[in-house]
Amino acid sequence: MKKRTAVLISGRGSNMRSLIEAAKAPDYPAEISLVFSNAVDAEGLAFAQEHGIPTKALSHKGYAREAFDEAVDAILREANIELVCLAGFMRIVSAPFVKKWEGQMLNIHPSLLPSFKGAHAHEDAIAAGVRISGCTVHFVAAEMDAGAIIVQAAVPVEIGDTPAALAVRVLVQEHKLYPEALKLLASGKVRLEGGKAVFSD
Amino acid sequence: MKKRTAVLISGRGSNMRSLIEAAKAPDYPAEISLVFSNAVDAEGLAFAQEHGIPTKALSHKGYAREAFDEAVDAILREANIELVCLAGFMRIVSAPFVKKWEGQMLNIHPSLLPSFKGAHAHEDAIAAGVRISGCTVHFVAAEMDAGAIIVQAAVPVEIGDTPAALAVRVLVQEHKLYPEALKLLASGKVRLEGGKAVFSD
Repeated sequence: MKKRTAVLISGRGSNMRSLIEAAKAPDYPAEISLVFSNAVDAEGLAFAQEHGIPTKALSHKGYAREAFDEAVDAILREANIELVCLAGFMRIVSAPFVKKWEGQMLNIHPSLLPSFKGAHAHEDAIAAGVRISGCTVHFVAAEMDAGAIIVQAAVPVEIGDTPAALAVRVLVQEHKLYPEALKLLASGKVRLEGGKAVFSD
Repeated sequence: MKKRTAVLISGRGSNMRSLIEAAKAPDYPAEISLVFSNAVDAEGLAFAQEHGIPTKALSHKGYAREAFDEAVDAILREANIELVCLAGFMRIVSAPFVKKWEGQMLNIHPSLLPSFKGAHAHEDAIAAGVRISGCTVHFVAAEMDAGAIIVQAAVPVEIGDTPAALAVRVLVQEHKLYPEALKLLASGKVRLEGGKAVFSD
């Protein structure tokens, strides 16, 4: 049985698209069963609908953080979701929500964590003068960008790179990396144990 | 004119060996003109001597840190050294020494800086659960492992890696990376400017 997976977005959902495409493969162990957005006009919703994937949108405006997360959790439970992929979901999820989905929720971050956490990874990488950056898929933990790492990909920083140019090059790797990580999780080849990613064959 | 370069070691000097080998190429822009060790019995000294390279050893024992660094500086000046490569040199160099050799002194560190500074890079990388580590050659700054980065190489961390196994794999890359960085510096293709590495063709 393919694992029923929700992708949470806030915008165009480019990583969501790569997950949808990857999940079309007959032997892929997860199916994208729901795309959820906290922005009712997110561009990614239309893409999902065109691919026959159920979507839900609920604006966080007017909600307290935990109340909103409870509403999202109810939507996920109602759709019998087993795994959750954050993909450009521009909300910091609350600790109770993280706890509920512990070991079942992934996020992708555009740096080689633990370097360059936060919302300005490419700017920070260029300011630090690194010659290699990359991207990371990790289990979501209560502390932002600090969950157990599942996979990473390295991307060279070119001389004279701008954050935007680096972002484009890293995004190409993100689109390969996220489906790879979801595959590992959905097939049981990685699991979260005591805060660590544990791998098996 | 090839840049007269000193390599500072404390032990077997495996990175020193790769620099000596690389500098044998007729078009390499640096020559290894001196190998210095603060351990009088460092294994690397014999290798350098076998390759016809002058060596000096001076134990730091009994010296105050700055007085020792002054003695090392005098040795380097006497040998008309222009560039310095720290290669497993197990001494934290003092701020005045760093200042004297600013922009002319390199170090190699077995991680993708700014992650995993300090003497236990591989242990720390494995404890953090990263899937990609690597190595970095940087200009030496007063703050340890914090100088401007010149080049980096990425190395996968394998499932079940030990610090020792990872160290061996990273070392293979170090032996390519350090000669590449020295070549950039000696040929004027990188320089230190305002604390940043500036590259040109």
